[in-house]
Amino acid sequence: MSLIVQKYGGTSVADLDRIRNVARRVINTKERGDDVVVVVSAMAGETDRLLALAKESAPEPDDREVDVVLATGEQVSSALLSIVLTSMGCKAKSYLGYQIKISTDRAYGKARITSVDADRIFSDLREGLIVVVAGFQGEDEEGNITTLGRGGSDTTAVAIAAALKADICEIFTDVDGVYTTDPNICDGVKKISRISYDEMLEMASMGAKVLQIRSVELAKKAGVPIHVRSSFHENEGTIVCEEDTEMEKALVSGVTYDIGQARVEIAKVPDRPGIAARFFEAISAANIVVDMIIQTSSLEEGYANMAFTISKADFPKALKIAHSLAKELEAQDVIAEQEVAKVSMVGVGMRSHSGVASKMFRALAREGINIKMISTSEIKISCIIDAKYTELAVRSLHEAFDLGKGS
Amino acid sequence: MSLIVQKYGGTSVADLDRIRNVARRVINTKERGDDVVVVVSAMAGETDRLLALAKESAPEPDDREVDVVLATGEQVSSALLSIVLTSMGCKAKSYLGYQIKISTDRAYGKARITSVDADRIFSDLREGLIVVVAGFQGEDEEGNITTLGRGGSDTTAVAIAAALKADICEIFTDVDGVYTTDPNICDGVKKISRISYDEMLEMASMGAKVLQIRSVELAKKAGVPIHVRSSFHENEGTIVCEEDTEMEKALVSGVTYDIGQARVEIAKVPDRPGIAARFFEAISAANIVVDMIIQTSSLEEGYANMAFTISKADFPKALKIAHSLAKELEAQDVIAEQEVAKVSMVGVGMRSHSGVASKMFRALAREGINIKMISTSEIKISCIIDAKYTELAVRSLHEAFDLGKGS
Repeated sequence: MSLIVQKYGGTSVADLDRIRNVARRVINTKERGDDVVVVVSAMAGETDRLLALAKESAPEPDDREVDVVLATGEQVSSALLSIVLTSMGCKAKSYLGYQIKISTDRAYGKARITSVDADRIFSDLREGLIVVVAGFQGEDEEGNITTLGRGGSDTTAVAIAAALKADICEIFTDVDGVYTTDPNICDGVKKISRISYDEMLEMASMGAKVLQIRSVELAKKAGVPIHVRSSFHENEGTIVCEEDTEMEKALVSGVTYDIGQARVEIAKVPDRPGIAARFFEAISAANIVVDMIIQTSSLEEGYANMAFTISKADFPKALKIAHSLAKELEAQDVIAEQEVAKVSMVGVGMRSHSGVASKMFRALAREGINIKMISTSEIKISCIIDAKYTELAVRSLHEAFDLGKGS
Repeated sequence: MSLIVQKYGGTSVADLDRIRNVARRVINTKERGDDVVVVVSAMAGETDRLLALAKESAPEPDDREVDVVLATGEQVSSALLSIVLTSMGCKAKSYLGYQIKISTDRAYGKARITSVDADRIFSDLREGLIVVVAGFQGEDEEGNITTLGRGGSDTTAVAIAAALKADICEIFTDVDGVYTTDPNICDGVKKISRISYDEMLEMASMGAKVLQIRSVELAKKAGVPIHVRSSFHENEGTIVCEEDTEMEKALVSGVTYDIGQARVEIAKVPDRPGIAARFFEAISAANIVVDMIIQTSSLEEGYANMAFTISKADFPKALKIAHSLAKELEAQDVIAEQEVAKVSMVGVGMRSHSGVASKMFRALAREGINIKMISTSEIKISCIIDAKYTELAVRSLHEAFDLGKGS
């Protein structure tokens, strides 16, 4: 007998027919003899509707109150699933975040879970109940409702799995699992059967939107294996877990891309100590998150170039700062590019194998794709390229590293 | 400086424009120097929508979970009002039932408030906040969400007013106050400026749907005056309070009617002790609420007639029981009538004045309206008549007792 936490996303509970499907799936698991705790998102579209309502009420609605509004989405779907389970002859009970003491900090709209009290859940499981939990929500120290941000129900599920020491956390979604790259732009992609927490983190932070990043961080910390799978059929999906020997055999696990970036370069800054520090000061004061940052010597001696990437949303703000900094630092030019993309290769195998970077650069060069910036980590290499080459780059890399089916 | 609890019903918060109107009204009160606690219902139609969703999920949805779904209606409207108040420059904070410890019994869907913890509200008021409370909801001893039934937000408001020892509980609604009779069927009706709790209870239980009955009971117990008034203009409405000398001058305060009743008569039962007891046993076993019940001797000696009224919804069940009882008690006939109405006169003045009953019967007789049943209390007389005469009866009585304007 296992203890399983199952999380169903918004598309899986989009209407009552789908909620009934979810209920059948939960009951099947229960009938296999396992204990089941279910975490649900709001019905698809509901969070957007509620957020729009809050924003219609005031252009900058109070953060605390927005969370009170948003939390109702999961409240309704969790109770409806519980109603359906009960009507199918299963004892079930829904809980809101505060009712099982999902404690968070007070960062409304993006709160972090600090603890979960498992006692009430255990007591219900012992009585044979199916426990249904409203995802995405918690309570701060003073009893205010908080929400965890987009994809927050993933984190709820993992946090509960960690608190219960569950055998596995199954994340049911509208995709089959994690793929070697985006199937929408590349043929012959392969589902990855096992992937390490670290690889998943790199992939998630670079645009693979299968799991909320924080849920992976939390799973890694607690050692909870995650099974990402489709709620529409029974096929196995992708297991996210500790790195194991099987994974190390693969040089590269996947190719990801992110077209939401922009690039700014402050060119020919008279080179002296403290340039980078001054730059970070200005940019963090404006609350802008910089992704890549590279400082290079200019061809002309005594000058440096400072290039960085930010999300497209922050581009206007960042450009303004760059111009003001250029003036202050007596730089000669500011180069701005919005049409760039980041293409990345991820894999724990890189740690023990050299040659991944050069193979990547050769593959891009073969297609005549110019690399504008490079950044690397232990298990990842990213390149900034012209956005128009995104699909071509992803396909070439996917092929160059033999990631496809039958490889 | 006063402490005022204001309750706004569903039509008063039906959309964002109306919520803004409510916010302005609340702010006006606050700017007069009063402390304000606001209780809101769900936006008009929302409770019906949520209930339909629960019933679509299962024909007989689990009571506990239905309350979890329904409670979201007030959660949204309370947070939206708080957002609007904050955006207008007022410090405001919304609270759900459990957050201010509105404790109830566990009768899901019709829970009764057992206590309210005023500490958190007082502490916010001291800091100059406007406190907004989601009506209609509470929490039982084990932390389950409960709801208070249709009109439950009235009761929330009165319970909070009682706990805070507020100066007044203002119930804002879509009518101007309590009238001498239903303005929809009678011309020249008059708004009652003051009415006693007892009269209001009698009127509420007989179809005047201005206030939830329990809110009046609670207000009476706690001695909280209620001011029923319109949210669409500034006119004074009706004060519901302790009986005072002014009220006693009026013989009759109002005329009410109820067309939701049906009448069943078991005719010519061989008369012997225990008939009524047997009848009550059978009817209460079926969970049917009987309104009037009258046992009379039949014209033929040795026989009795047993007549009772129930709500139309219970009519089929009651009729079945009547037939089975008739057989058991060897009665000779069962007479069933669905097309009946109850017309009532209410007034504390009846206590000290005789002649109200005979005046009422004369007025009905003058119009040729036959009285099928009569029941009386200290401050009320009700007659069952043919439903088709309802409007005629109400108008005649309203005129006979000079209740109209300019009287």
